[in-house]
Amino acid sequence: MTSTVIVGGVAGGMSTAARLRRRDEHMEIVVIEASGYVSFANCGLPYHVSGVIPERDSLLLQTPESLHERFNLDVRVNHLVTAIDRKAQEVTIRNLLDGSESRVHYDNLVLSPGATPIMPPIPGIERALTLRTVEDVDKILAHLTDDITSVALIGGGFIGLELAENLHHRGLKVTIIERAEQIMAPLDPEMAAIVTDHLRSKGLTILTGADTAQIGDKGLSLASGEIIDADLVIAAIGVKPESTLAREAGLAIGERGGIKVDEQQRTSDPAIFALGDAAEKRDAVSGDDVLVPLAQTANRHGRLVADIITGRDVHRTATLGTSIVGLFDLAAGSVGWNEKRAALMGQPTRIIHVHPANHAGYYPGAETIHLKLVVNPETDAILGAQAVGAAGVDKRIDVIATAMRGGLTATDLADLELAYAPQFGSAKDPVNFAGFVNDNMVAGERTFQWNQVDEAINDGWTLVDVRTPAEFAEGTITGAINLPLDDLRERFGELESKKTLVFCRVGLRGHVATSLLTHLGIETANLDGGFMTWEYAQKMEG
Amino acid sequence: MTSTVIVGGVAGGMSTAARLRRRDEHMEIVVIEASGYVSFANCGLPYHVSGVIPERDSLLLQTPESLHERFNLDVRVNHLVTAIDRKAQEVTIRNLLDGSESRVHYDNLVLSPGATPIMPPIPGIERALTLRTVEDVDKILAHLTDDITSVALIGGGFIGLELAENLHHRGLKVTIIERAEQIMAPLDPEMAAIVTDHLRSKGLTILTGADTAQIGDKGLSLASGEIIDADLVIAAIGVKPESTLAREAGLAIGERGGIKVDEQQRTSDPAIFALGDAAEKRDAVSGDDVLVPLAQTANRHGRLVADIITGRDVHRTATLGTSIVGLFDLAAGSVGWNEKRAALMGQPTRIIHVHPANHAGYYPGAETIHLKLVVNPETDAILGAQAVGAAGVDKRIDVIATAMRGGLTATDLADLELAYAPQFGSAKDPVNFAGFVNDNMVAGERTFQWNQVDEAINDGWTLVDVRTPAEFAEGTITGAINLPLDDLRERFGELESKKTLVFCRVGLRGHVATSLLTHLGIETANLDGGFMTWEYAQKMEG
Repeated sequence: MTSTVIVGGVAGGMSTAARLRRRDEHMEIVVIEASGYVSFANCGLPYHVSGVIPERDSLLLQTPESLHERFNLDVRVNHLVTAIDRKAQEVTIRNLLDGSESRVHYDNLVLSPGATPIMPPIPGIERALTLRTVEDVDKILAHLTDDITSVALIGGGFIGLELAENLHHRGLKVTIIERAEQIMAPLDPEMAAIVTDHLRSKGLTILTGADTAQIGDKGLSLASGEIIDADLVIAAIGVKPESTLAREAGLAIGERGGIKVDEQQRTSDPAIFALGDAAEKRDAVSGDDVLVPLAQTANRHGRLVADIITGRDVHRTATLGTSIVGLFDLAAGSVGWNEKRAALMGQPTRIIHVHPANHAGYYPGAETIHLKLVVNPETDAILGAQAVGAAGVDKRIDVIATAMRGGLTATDLADLELAYAPQFGSAKDPVNFAGFVNDNMVAGERTFQWNQVDEAINDGWTLVDVRTPAEFAEGTITGAINLPLDDLRERFGELESKKTLVFCRVGLRGHVATSLLTHLGIETANLDGGFMTWEYAQKMEG
Repeated sequence: MTSTVIVGGVAGGMSTAARLRRRDEHMEIVVIEASGYVSFANCGLPYHVSGVIPERDSLLLQTPESLHERFNLDVRVNHLVTAIDRKAQEVTIRNLLDGSESRVHYDNLVLSPGATPIMPPIPGIERALTLRTVEDVDKILAHLTDDITSVALIGGGFIGLELAENLHHRGLKVTIIERAEQIMAPLDPEMAAIVTDHLRSKGLTILTGADTAQIGDKGLSLASGEIIDADLVIAAIGVKPESTLAREAGLAIGERGGIKVDEQQRTSDPAIFALGDAAEKRDAVSGDDVLVPLAQTANRHGRLVADIITGRDVHRTATLGTSIVGLFDLAAGSVGWNEKRAALMGQPTRIIHVHPANHAGYYPGAETIHLKLVVNPETDAILGAQAVGAAGVDKRIDVIATAMRGGLTATDLADLELAYAPQFGSAKDPVNFAGFVNDNMVAGERTFQWNQVDEAINDGWTLVDVRTPAEFAEGTITGAINLPLDDLRERFGELESKKTLVFCRVGLRGHVATSLLTHLGIETANLDGGFMTWEYAQKMEG
């Protein structure tokens, strides 16, 4: 009888264990989990803080007992694997409750210990709570006594923002302190600005470019000298792979600290597999080794490792890092590379911003989706996408993720046949729309980005707002003149054939104007994403 | 100056016209529309009947005047093209208001006249109202006086059912009369049964296998002799391509009555293009010529034709026929082929039914999605999918449509990286889930379909319900014994190694039981889709 020892009993580890049993009734399967709980809903933890998920038990999807009953698993919670003896194929396991130690043999070892919160060496950091386990939630809830009225949250990533929303729902005054110039790193700054704007409208305080200098009893101080009063400080700065055990066992570790694995999740020791947040993934766009701490991938790789251990010759798929977060009335999702990443990698991009409605405008309740597409202009390959909006964001990100997996080009998006009824979409879906804009650019239409406007003006481009006089009066880009689209055919002479940068609200009328003026012999470009993208980008600062 | 005449000013025709102008400022563009309105929201019409879309004007997306102003189009409503002189390249146009006729030259002619409601030769059919144009809605609303309390709706397709819901919202007693054995032809019968069940629970009367014999003043009679009392009769039996003009002009017409076109939407006359509901499409699965009367495709082909006329060498994409309908609290969508179609074409299939939640079960508000996948067992290609559920149906259909377009296999669905946060999905999305089930079948797991149970029992299979005793007590399949999954390891001896067909609620525990029993040496199969698919299928009859 062979035996498999699995380190970590949450997403990846437990997927491995359950699948192993379905594939092999006779294998000995031991799962070692350092916390007191296995198979808990980590992505649900922030929502228990507010009571949106009222029952703590509903976070606990399985227990060691239920797993034993159904899958005949030997699950040991509150146990820590302290060492791997690779030669003897044994692990040393410490019982965290009584301190006793034992050694267990393995034929295959699966490392799925997850990640741990990053705790930078800020004076007083030990005062900050974190959120990663069920015990962490219990601790936060225990601290949220009636006299606590304000919380400072260090970190504007997914978990920090989810937690901020849920603390706000409890009536707390929440300040988010983000070291970078924007929250939500997976988004580009002008897209993150939409989220920032929404969170501020809900009453959250968001400080960007804010470096925490010291944490005290009554809050924290920033490097700028500013003092943030807070009854409680929580750190959600990010996570790092839990690779200490692997490192100490001499397994190869990647540059970013994740356990190195091959296309079958094998570490540098063929008897040892690694997966989940602790292991490196292969980036689908570049082929590089990356860290992508997402539950979906952990689960999938758990199933994969179980299949490989039980004799199937299957391989991992490279990762797109598709993700989403819901914050108050907004969702923000992304897939693949953002523009920042492409710039960092020296990859030229074609950028497209569109702001269509999530479903037919004539049907009640339509909401704007802000969608950004990042394209390789040489190959027309989709490098990535981002979307922010009140409804339908998840669908568009999933469709683009699937298109990327299928190797479809950005122009192919124009032809995707997506289900249309007025409650669900439009005859021209937002994804089709992005494809149309891409197709127009392939056919030669020139666009400028929001951050190229100043330069264009300096270069002698005339800025023309083709919206209605009423829209123009409500605010426009400084220096723009108003020439409404429907008057353009009569009044284009006023432009005196100067280089013309047109814009409208979202880019659609601008496209019509660009086509018209170009045919009339005027060198014209359209402002991508229109006034809306430009205006959100202005909100970034401060 | 070249000129293009476009016959039909709704989805396809108007997309052609607007795109033509963006591509060519100088072309003469004439749009001839027989009704009084152009560019109206046909898919929104049923919702104006109830007032869900309260403003009639919001259905009218453009007017001849607004189109002239923005796009310099010559749009003539209430005008009918009565003849095409292909030699002279002229059309004869009749003004339907004053009867006058004129002839207009074209360099390119675009036929997008749409489809007309099928009106079978039932005695009294002229009494039935239909719904296709804004005028039709006006007529229905004019008939819905206070003394009207009941409506008989002939036809259980998309428009009939949407109209039924909206008439029900107005407080009318609605009876749907469908000639086929099921409503919603794009779905297979056991999937349509879920919709039927829902509509009946809302108070609609649905008669299937019901052939209308005669329509009278006070309702209608069926071939069975049954009398259906109704103050108003509406026929929504389906549509046929409006190809009379093309036929009379000698253009090639396909077997199904649609105008034949090539990969660039050219008819048998190279100066004449056709698109929209009047034209044939290429089926993406089989490559056959088919009729797919969907707005999305009409719009897309309008853009395509404009590009081709203005010199781009672009080609159509074959159609998947992705569609969806919202009915009360349910959505029902489909893409590609259903099982019926595959059977008709002699195409072997692998069938998968799953019933996962639309998002994480631990987050409040999760709803079941009933998802069916139709797979080519030889190539693992996805032939089609159907989904029914309260939320998230559109997303899953769109993802599968995109996967089909990208040439992904059914097993590839297991690896799709879809955006997960507890409000939007699960770490294992319903689409992934269908992929997992497919992968299990590829790896050798055997399943039976709901309609194979009786045969299996006759063949000596023991039917084992692996749900809990409490679930078993609430209803099971006749002849099944109860052996709960968690007891199976101890009690499998009771099966005496007989061929065992296991089932649970949705198929998941059945899969675990199948794995277990197979490893224990018992020939085992799992009932695909579990008790839930089987139980819905029972509701089909009657």
